[in-house]
Amino acid sequence: MKNTKPYYAVIFTSTQTEKIEGYTEMAEQMENLAKQQEGYLGIESARNSIGITVSYWESLDAIKQWKQNSEHLFTQQKGREQWYNLYKVRICKVEREYEFEK
Amino acid sequence: MKNTKPYYAVIFTSTQTEKIEGYTEMAEQMENLAKQQEGYLGIESARNSIGITVSYWESLDAIKQWKQNSEHLFTQQKGREQWYNLYKVRICKVEREYEFEK
Repeated sequence: MKNTKPYYAVIFTSTQTEKIEGYTEMAEQMENLAKQQEGYLGIESARNSIGITVSYWESLDAIKQWKQNSEHLFTQQKGREQWYNLYKVRICKVEREYEFEK
Repeated sequence: MKNTKPYYAVIFTSTQTEKIEGYTEMAEQMENLAKQQEGYLGIESARNSIGITVSYWESLDAIKQWKQNSEHLFTQQKGREQWYNLYKVRICKVEREYEFEK
């Protein structure tokens, strides 16, 4: 991930329905699509009982552009219809960070 | 989760070592301890190849207090020694949020 500051994080938390057909392909496709967006910095994902995906962006404008990407809009619609029981999106400004590595 | 605004999110991403003995108990214990902290709003966690835990707080000061909690400090140390290969902590201000529910 590029080390640009300040930057933004989109926290997407969700719980899935039973109808997860096509979900994995979609997730992969959306990740590839996001990578091509202007201002994209990175993405991290984990899922067990709930799913958490955090994507990182250079600006609020980049996040807005990504939300309005036509292919992404289509997938958001399909997500509401099929894959998700609920989701929550939080747009956040990263104020500080630190890390540890062995 | 209480709907207070503005509020803060701590995004904790990590990869684990092979020595995960005691990890689950610790995670549960830390969650219970966090819940007793002043300014705690909620926590969400998921893990498969990486782990993502997001905790939510009323203020930067509440986050600071939690980081300095003595039992938590001990666990942070043990985390670096035993459970984690790497982790990254991002302190974020939640600027906007929206949700969907079926």
